[in-house]
Amino acid sequence: MGSTSGPHAIGEGLYFSDGRRKVDYVLVFHQRRHTSIRSPASASVSQDRLSIVSNGNFPSMAASDVAPGGGGGGGGGGGGIPGGEGAGASEVFMELGGAGDGEPMEPGDHEMRLIRQEFEANLIEAGLEIERDRELKSHGPSFTRVHAPWPVLCREAEFLKIRVPTKTSYELKEETGFGSSMSTVWRTLTKPFQPKVPHQDHGRTKFLSHCFSRDKLHLYNITSKDTFFDNATRGRIVYEILRRTVCARTCQTIGISTLIAKGVYDAAFPLHDGDYKVIGHLEERNDRQVLHEEWARYSAFYKYQPIDLVRKYFGEKIGLYFAWLGVYTQLLVPASIVGIIVFGYGVATMDTNIPSLEMCDQRLNFTMCPLCDQACDFWHLSTACGTAKASHLFDNPATVFFAIFMSLWAVLFLEQWKRRQISLSFSWDLTGIEEDEEHPRPRYETILLQKRQKKQNNKKKKKKKNEPAKQEDGTVTGKDRWRQKLLSAMSAGIPSPIEKLTWKDRLPGYLINVSSILFMFALTFSAVFGVIIYRITVSAIMAMSPDPEIRHNVRVTVTATAVIINLVVILILDEIYGAVAVWLTELEIPKTETNFEERLILKAFLLKFMNAYAPIFYVAFFKGRFAGRPGNYVYVFNDFRMEECAPGGCLIELCIQLSIIMLGKQLIQNNIFEIGIPKLKKLVRTLKEKETTTKVREEEKPPQQWNLDYALAPFEGLTPEYMEMIIQFGFVSLFVASFPLAPLFALLNNIIEIRLDAKKFVTELRRPVAARAKDIGIWYNVLSGMGKFSVIINAFVISFTSDFIPRLVYEYMYSPTGTMHGFIDHTLSYFNVSDLKPGTAPQNSELGNITLCRYKDYREPPWSPDAYQFSKQYWCVLAARLAFVILFQNLVMFLSLVVAWVIPDVPKTIVEQLKREKKLLVDVFLQEEKEKLQLIQSLFAKDATLHPSGNTLPPGQDLPIPGRYSTLPSGPTAGDGGGGPRARCRAASFSQFNRNIASSPMKENENSKHTAV
Amino acid sequence: MGSTSGPHAIGEGLYFSDGRRKVDYVLVFHQRRHTSIRSPASASVSQDRLSIVSNGNFPSMAASDVAPGGGGGGGGGGGGIPGGEGAGASEVFMELGGAGDGEPMEPGDHEMRLIRQEFEANLIEAGLEIERDRELKSHGPSFTRVHAPWPVLCREAEFLKIRVPTKTSYELKEETGFGSSMSTVWRTLTKPFQPKVPHQDHGRTKFLSHCFSRDKLHLYNITSKDTFFDNATRGRIVYEILRRTVCARTCQTIGISTLIAKGVYDAAFPLHDGDYKVIGHLEERNDRQVLHEEWARYSAFYKYQPIDLVRKYFGEKIGLYFAWLGVYTQLLVPASIVGIIVFGYGVATMDTNIPSLEMCDQRLNFTMCPLCDQACDFWHLSTACGTAKASHLFDNPATVFFAIFMSLWAVLFLEQWKRRQISLSFSWDLTGIEEDEEHPRPRYETILLQKRQKKQNNKKKKKKKNEPAKQEDGTVTGKDRWRQKLLSAMSAGIPSPIEKLTWKDRLPGYLINVSSILFMFALTFSAVFGVIIYRITVSAIMAMSPDPEIRHNVRVTVTATAVIINLVVILILDEIYGAVAVWLTELEIPKTETNFEERLILKAFLLKFMNAYAPIFYVAFFKGRFAGRPGNYVYVFNDFRMEECAPGGCLIELCIQLSIIMLGKQLIQNNIFEIGIPKLKKLVRTLKEKETTTKVREEEKPPQQWNLDYALAPFEGLTPEYMEMIIQFGFVSLFVASFPLAPLFALLNNIIEIRLDAKKFVTELRRPVAARAKDIGIWYNVLSGMGKFSVIINAFVISFTSDFIPRLVYEYMYSPTGTMHGFIDHTLSYFNVSDLKPGTAPQNSELGNITLCRYKDYREPPWSPDAYQFSKQYWCVLAARLAFVILFQNLVMFLSLVVAWVIPDVPKTIVEQLKREKKLLVDVFLQEEKEKLQLIQSLFAKDATLHPSGNTLPPGQDLPIPGRYSTLPSGPTAGDGGGGPRARCRAASFSQFNRNIASSPMKENENSKHTAV
Repeated sequence: MGSTSGPHAIGEGLYFSDGRRKVDYVLVFHQRRHTSIRSPASASVSQDRLSIVSNGNFPSMAASDVAPGGGGGGGGGGGGIPGGEGAGASEVFMELGGAGDGEPMEPGDHEMRLIRQEFEANLIEAGLEIERDRELKSHGPSFTRVHAPWPVLCREAEFLKIRVPTKTSYELKEETGFGSSMSTVWRTLTKPFQPKVPHQDHGRTKFLSHCFSRDKLHLYNITSKDTFFDNATRGRIVYEILRRTVCARTCQTIGISTLIAKGVYDAAFPLHDGDYKVIGHLEERNDRQVLHEEWARYSAFYKYQPIDLVRKYFGEKIGLYFAWLGVYTQLLVPASIVGIIVFGYGVATMDTNIPSLEMCDQRLNFTMCPLCDQACDFWHLSTACGTAKASHLFDNPATVFFAIFMSLWAVLFLEQWKRRQISLSFSWDLTGIEEDEEHPRPRYETILLQKRQKKQNNKKKKKKKNEPAKQEDGTVTGKDRWRQKLLSAMSAGIPSPIEKLTWKDRLPGYLINVSSILFMFALTFSAVFGVIIYRITVSAIMAMSPDPEIRHNVRVTVTATAVIINLVVILILDEIYGAVAVWLTELEIPKTETNFEERLILKAFLLKFMNAYAPIFYVAFFKGRFAGRPGNYVYVFNDFRMEECAPGGCLIELCIQLSIIMLGKQLIQNNIFEIGIPKLKKLVRTLKEKETTTKVREEEKPPQQWNLDYALAPFEGLTPEYMEMIIQFGFVSLFVASFPLAPLFALLNNIIEIRLDAKKFVTELRRPVAARAKDIGIWYNVLSGMGKFSVIINAFVISFTSDFIPRLVYEYMYSPTGTMHGFIDHTLSYFNVSDLKPGTAPQNSELGNITLCRYKDYREPPWSPDAYQFSKQYWCVLAARLAFVILFQNLVMFLSLVVAWVIPDVPKTIVEQLKREKKLLVDVFLQEEKEKLQLIQSLFAKDATLHPSGNTLPPGQDLPIPGRYSTLPSGPTAGDGGGGPRARCRAASFSQFNRNIASSPMKENENSKHTAV
Repeated sequence: MGSTSGPHAIGEGLYFSDGRRKVDYVLVFHQRRHTSIRSPASASVSQDRLSIVSNGNFPSMAASDVAPGGGGGGGGGGGGIPGGEGAGASEVFMELGGAGDGEPMEPGDHEMRLIRQEFEANLIEAGLEIERDRELKSHGPSFTRVHAPWPVLCREAEFLKIRVPTKTSYELKEETGFGSSMSTVWRTLTKPFQPKVPHQDHGRTKFLSHCFSRDKLHLYNITSKDTFFDNATRGRIVYEILRRTVCARTCQTIGISTLIAKGVYDAAFPLHDGDYKVIGHLEERNDRQVLHEEWARYSAFYKYQPIDLVRKYFGEKIGLYFAWLGVYTQLLVPASIVGIIVFGYGVATMDTNIPSLEMCDQRLNFTMCPLCDQACDFWHLSTACGTAKASHLFDNPATVFFAIFMSLWAVLFLEQWKRRQISLSFSWDLTGIEEDEEHPRPRYETILLQKRQKKQNNKKKKKKKNEPAKQEDGTVTGKDRWRQKLLSAMSAGIPSPIEKLTWKDRLPGYLINVSSILFMFALTFSAVFGVIIYRITVSAIMAMSPDPEIRHNVRVTVTATAVIINLVVILILDEIYGAVAVWLTELEIPKTETNFEERLILKAFLLKFMNAYAPIFYVAFFKGRFAGRPGNYVYVFNDFRMEECAPGGCLIELCIQLSIIMLGKQLIQNNIFEIGIPKLKKLVRTLKEKETTTKVREEEKPPQQWNLDYALAPFEGLTPEYMEMIIQFGFVSLFVASFPLAPLFALLNNIIEIRLDAKKFVTELRRPVAARAKDIGIWYNVLSGMGKFSVIINAFVISFTSDFIPRLVYEYMYSPTGTMHGFIDHTLSYFNVSDLKPGTAPQNSELGNITLCRYKDYREPPWSPDAYQFSKQYWCVLAARLAFVILFQNLVMFLSLVVAWVIPDVPKTIVEQLKREKKLLVDVFLQEEKEKLQLIQSLFAKDATLHPSGNTLPPGQDLPIPGRYSTLPSGPTAGDGGGGPRARCRAASFSQFNRNIASSPMKENENSKHTAV
C-alpha cells in the first residue's frame, strides 16, 4: 500500500507498471482476507520478486531438446525454441505474501487461491504476461492484469484466422457519368449527417485484407507492433487463450467462464480505451471518446452511425446489432411517411365520408337497442357520432393499401438487411469465418461430472475404474502437456458416447419447462380475461349509477382504465417472464452457450410475444363476436353481458389498445427500465462502495482504468436489446392495418433507442469481448416468421375487424344508387322490443314507447319466417370477407416472393469487388512467387560456387532483400512453404495452383531421393 | 491404311498403341479431304516420326534457366525442371502428310487444321500426351487420343482439390443395443434388393479422405499410379485442361467447347470403360459391365441403385440425379399405398354412400332440365347413377385427408432429399467444393467480339486502338506464356467494364422472348379453347342426331375424344416448346453455361407447365361455372351453350382428364420419345454410315473403343430428364386431391424410368465428363415452389371442385335429421319451364307435360320474390368453401413448417462422423508433424557434426525413412511446407494451429536474419 502511483501515471492506467506493455485483459477477484500463505505446490518462489513474469513459449524445451548453439535459422524455425528468455518461466507464479503469518485459511478460500495460481501459471505458459497489484488489500477487488506480447498475438491471430489489411490497396470503382454526379450530390447532401470520425473516410481505396500469417509479415501494413492489432482484437485474442486454458490439477475445468461461475474469479473483461470524457485536445481523442462524441449522445440523433468504428471497438456482433438497428430505423422513415399520408387521407376525407355522415345525421335517427339490461335506455345512433368520425380516421380504403404496403415493406426490410449484412461481411472480412467449437457451459459440465461420478460409484464393485482422469498424469513434459491440453480442449466439443447427457437427464427439466410455459400462458390469458371482467363489471356498475355524468362517460373511463391496467400487467409480466425464461433454460441444461441462447430466445420470445399481444388479439378478433343478439345475449357469471365493440366498429378500439400499449411500453421501458433502474443500481453500488471503503480510501490515489471499468455493469448479451426491437417490429407489422401511425412512433422511439443503447455501451458497461459473428442469427428467422405471420393477421384485421368489406359489398351488391348512401341502415337489423327477455327491458325509457329497436348485425327482421337468423347478407358479406383474406394473403405472398426474387441478395458492386479482390490477390501472390523463384535461382547460382557440397546458405549470410524474404527459409520448395498460411483464404486455390507451376516437375516421382533437408 | 491392328489389340482399344498409356479423352474431327500440306507455322518437323509426342512440363526452361547439373533436390524442387525428356517438346505437333502433294486447300479447311495444330501443341505444352491415327482416311472421323501422365494428373488434382482416400480409415460407429439388432434385421431383409457390386461394401470402415496434395503422397493409398485416379476423374482432369487451353494465335478463344462450336472439332468425349456386354469371367467385369448388369436392366427394377458406382463412373452430377430419382421413387411407395387405401375406402363405401344412393334411387325421380336447347329432352337424375357412383370413388372425405397427407408428403420428400443430399455430399466428399469460374459461352464471345470490333472501328478516327489483342505478343518465353495464359484464363470470368454486353445489346432478344412467350401462352390457351369448342359443337351435333344410340353415348364419346385430342396437342406442343425455349435462350446471349441452363430451365418449365396443366386447370376451376342457368344460359358464338360438368360433379371429369393426360404422356413419352426415336435415329445413322463406308470397310479391322463410342449419341445434359420428372411431380402433388391413384402410376412409371435412363446412360450415350455438383441446383427451388403451389391448388380443388363442403354444410346446418338424407334434393334448384326462352324448350318431350324441372345450383325457386337469384344457401356454402381454403392453406403451411423444423437438415450420424473425421485428421497431422520434428532434430544433431558450416544434408544422403519423408525438402520450416496443401481442407485450421506450435517462437521478429535458403 502506498508508493505505486509513480509508474502507473504513465499511459493513463492502460499499461503495466513499466508503462510500455498494454493491459489487454483484467481478471478480478475478491480478496476476502488480508493474509496469504505460501502455496504448498511450489515452495521455491522468492517472496520479494516483482510480480511480473514474462516468458517465451514452451520453456521446458529450452534446455533439454535442442542445443542452444544450434539456433539461428535451423533450430528456431523447426523446433520452436526461443533463443533465451525461458528462465524462470517454469516457476509457478505465486501471490505475494504480505504479512507472512501462518494463519489457517478457510478451505474454499484456500482452494480458490490454488486454482488461481495454477490457472495463471498456465496463462504464463501460454505466453501471456501478467501483472498483479503489489500492495495487498484487506478487502475489495484485486486485479490481475494480462498483457499479450507480439509473438502470442501473432500466433493466435494466425490460429483465429484474423484478417488484417495488407499493403496492397486498390481503387474502388468510381461510378461514371450520371451515377457519379448523383453520388457526389448525395455525398454533399448527406455530409452534415456523417459522423466526424478520424481515419474512417479513406475515400475510394480499400486495402486488400488477408488472413494473418507469420510467414507473410512483409505483406502487411505493420507500422508498429503495439498498434497493429487494435485493442478489441487484442482483447479477443486474450479471451481466446483464457477460454481454452485448462486448470487440470486443481479443478479439472477449462476456461475462465467456468472459473467465474465457480467464484474463483469475480469478473474478467478487457479494458476500455480510456475515459470517455474528452479533456485535452479534440484531435487526440481515443476511440471511446470519438464514439461518445459522435455517436453515443442524443444530440447526434440525426447522424449516421459510425458503424465501422463501433465494430472496431466492440467487435462484429455488437456492430451488426447497431447496423441492423440502423437499417430498421432508416427503413421506418418511408413507412412513417406513407403512414402519415394514409392517416392524412383519413383526416381529409372525414367530412365527406358518407357512412360517418349518416351516423351523425340526426334526421336518420336510428333508435338503438339498449347497451345493458334494465339500467340502460334505448339510444340514438347519432349520439355516437364522435366515435364514428374517429373510426374513419383508421378505417378507410387507404388502410388496405397500407396493409399491403407494410407487408411488402417487411419483406423489403429483410432483403435490405440481407444485402447490408453481406456488404458488411465483405467490408469487415467476415466471409470465410466458421463457427468455433464451443466448450460446454459450466453447469453442463457440473451435471455431467455428477452423472459420471454416480456411474463410477456404481461400477466400482465390478471392476476398477477404466477411465482415470486424463489430466492427472503429471509426468509428461511441458511440450507434451501443452499439446495434450490442446487436444483435450479441441476434443471437448466431441462427445464420447458415454459422456453426454441424455434426454433422461433432462426429462425433469423438460417437464418443468412445459408445465411452466403452459402455466404462464394460462396466466397471460387469465390476466386478459380479468381485464375483460373488470370492464364488464365496472361498466355495468357505472351504468347503474344515478349520476348522468358518470353514465355518460362509461365507455371512455372504462376503456382508458382497462387499457392502463393491461399495460401495467404486461410490463410486470414482461419482467417476470424474462427471469422465468432464463431459469427454465438453465433447467434444460443446454450444452453450449449458443445452445443456451437459442433456447432462451425461443422461450422468452414466445412468452413475451403472448404477453404483449394477447389483449390486442382479443380486441381484434374476439371482442363483440360472442355477445349474442338482443333477446339472446351471452352472459358471463350469469349476470354480466359480454361486452360489445363501440358503435364505430371494433377497429377504433383496436387502434386505441394498440397505440396505448405500444407507446406506454416503449416510454416506460425506455425511461424506467433502461435509464432509471441502471442509474439507481449504480447509485446503490456507489453508496455501498463508499460505506465499505471510506476507511481504506484515505490515501486518495487516483483510480486506475481497471478500477473504473470494474465499477461499471457487466455486459450481459444483446438478447434483451434485440427482443425489445422484435416486439416493436410486431407492433409495426402485425396490426399495422389498424394503426397507420405505428411506424412513426416506432421511428421516434428508435432514434432515441439507438443513442440510448450507444450511451449504455460506451459509458455504462464494461467493455465486452469483441465477438465475431457473421449474421444476426436466429433473430433473422424470428423477423421473417413475424413478417409472414403479419400477412394473415392483417388480412383478417382488414376483412373482419374493419368495415371495409361490408362497405364494398353494399356498394356493389345492395346499394340501389351504387353509392354508400343507406349503408348504415343496411348494417342495422331490426329487433322487436317485445322479444326481450323479461326483466331485461329498460325500466324507464326517456324515448317514449319504442316497439322496434335496431342493432348492428346482419339478421332477419322479426317479421321474417326465420326471425333473428343470419340473413342472406350476412353470408354474402362473410363470403366476401373470406374471399378477401384468401386474395390478400396469396397476393401479398406472391408479391413478397417477387420482391425477394427481384432484389439480389448480394449487391452487384460487392460481387464485382470480390472478383477484383480475388484477381488482385492472385496477382500479388504470383508476383511474390516469381520474385522468390528468381531469388532462389540467383542464390543457387551463388551457392553452387560457394558450397559445392550443400546447396543452402549459412544462416548469417546476407540476402539480396533480407527484409522481405525473411520468411524464405525453406530452400528449394519455397513455393510450398509460402502456400501454407494462405489456407482458407480466398486465394488458396490460386496460390496452390501457382505453386504447382513452380514445383510440379519435381514431384514426378513421389519416392525420389531428392530430399534435401 | 493397313497394319495397325497389332499394337492396338493390347488393352482392348483403351490404350495408346504402346498398350500402356490409357486413352483418357478423344477428340474427333472430320477429315474432308484425303490430303494435307505442311503447316507453314513450323517447317522443321520430321515427317516420318511416330505421331506420339510426350513431354514434361515447361520445356523451354530445360535448357536456359538452370544448369542441368544443379539438379537433384535443389533444381528440381524450386525451378520446376524435369531431368530430361524435354527434347522435342517445343516442336509443334503436326499432322502427318500422307501423300504430300501440294494441292491448294479450301481456306476454311486449312484454317481449321491450323487451329487444331496450335491447340494440340498447347495441350502438349500443358503436359498431355497425344496420339493420332497413323493412317490417313479419305473421309470419316479422325481421332486424336489424349493421355494424361501421372505428373499432370497430380498437378491438376491438386488444383481441382480432388479429394482422395488416405490410408487412414476408421470404424463407423456401430449402433448399440436395440438399434444394432434392428439394423441387422434390416440388412438381412434388404439383402436381395442390394445390387451385387464388387468392393462397394467395405462394411463399417470409412477411409478418411483429403484433398490431393503432392506433398502428402505418402498419406494416400496409392497402389498403382495408373489406377489411383479412376477413369472418370482422369477424364475430368483432361477436360479441365481442354477447357482452359487457349488457342491464341489462330483463333483467339479458350477451350474445347468453343472449338467444337466453331466446327474445328466434331466431338470430344472420354472413353467408356470398355464394352458393356460381359463376355468372359463375371469376376473381371469393368465398371460399365457392372452397371449394365446390376443397374441398367429392367430385371433389376426391384434392386437399390449402386449409386456410389454410378457416381464413380459418371460423376457427381449424374449421380445426384439418380440418387434424387431414387429418393423420389422410394417415397412414392408410401404415397401410393395411402392412395390405394384412400381409393379402397371410396370403393368400399360406394354402396353405403347416401348421396349417390339417392341419386340412383328411381323413386326420388328428379326431373332435370334439358342439357341442350331444343334437341335434348328433360331427363331423370337416376339415369346418371353410374357417374354418381364413380364420382364417389374420388370425391369422399378420405380425399381431404389425402390432400393434406400429400402436401405434407411433398414437404417430407424435400426434407428427405436434403438429408440424402447432405449424406451423399459427406460420403462423396463434396462439402468443400466451390463453383468454378466459368468461361463465357462461344456465342457470347462471338457477339462480344463483334461489338468490340464495331466500337474499335468507330474509335479509329480519334486515336489509335488502345487495346491490342493481348495474346498476340509472341516474344514471351514458354514459361511466361504459360503463366499469362493462366492469368487470362482466370481473369476471363472477370468482366472489364468495357467488355461486356449491356441490356442494350440484349434488348432485341428480350423483346422477342417476351413476345414469343406471350404468343405461346396464347397458343396453349387457344388449344384448350379449341378443344372446348370441339366438345361443345360435337356434342350439340351428336345430340341432334336421330340415332338414339349415338345420343346416349354423347358424353362418353365426346369426353374421350376430346381428352385424346388434348393429349396429342400437349405432346406436340411439348416438343415444340422444348425447341423454342432453347432458341429463345440463345437469343438472350447468356454469358456462361450455368446462366444458359438456368434461363432455359425457367422458360422451358413455364411453357411446358402451362401446356401440360392448362386443360386440367380449366376442368378443375372453370368448366361449368360460366354455363349460366336454365332460361339464362351463356352461349358461345351465339349458338352453342357453354358446357357443364357431368351430374356426378366436376371432380370425376377432372379425374378422367388428369389420369388420361398423365398416363398417356408418360407412356407415349417413355415409349416413343425415349425408346423409339433414339433407336430410329441410330438405325438411320448406321444405315448412312454403311452406305458411305462400304467401299472403305474392306479390310474389316475390329472397331476401336473410340469408334464405338463415337457412334453413340452425345450426352446433352440432364435438363430433359429432370423436366420430365418435375412435370410428373406436378401430377402427383398439384391435383392429387382429385386422383389418389396418381402416386401409384407415378411410382410404376418411375420404376421403369430409372432403368430406362440407366440403360440410356450406360449403353446409348457417349460417356459424359464427370461433372462435380453439390446439389441439384434450381430444380430444388422448382420442386419446393411446386409443393407450395400445390397447397393452394388442392385447397381449391377440395372446396370448389369436390362436393365435400356442400355436404358438410348440409349435414351440419340444413339437414333436418343430421344425416345426408335429402342432400341431393337440397342441391337442386327449381325451374319453371315456362321461363325458358322461346325456341329453347325441348321439342317433343317423352316425359309428358313438365312444368317444373330441377337443375344443380343454389338458387331461389320461381315462387320466391327474387326468383332465380342466388339463395342464402349459396352464400352460406360459398363462405364455408372459402373458410375451408383459408383453414386448409394455413394449416398445411403451418404443418409443413413444423415438419421442416422437426427434421434436421443434417442427419445426426453425419454430424458425429464429421466431428470424428475432423479429430482423426488432426491426429494424423499432429502425428506427422511430430515425426517430422523428431526427424529434423535427429538430422540436425547429425548435421552439426558433419557439416559445421551448412545445416542441411547433401542431396544424396540416406535419410532414416526416405520413402515417407521424400516430401521434406524444406529444412527447418518443414512445418510450414506441410501446411500448404491442406488449404481449404477440413483440417486447415488445425494444421495451421499445429504449425504454430512447431514454429512460432522462431517468428518473433519478422525481420530476423535467420533465413536459411
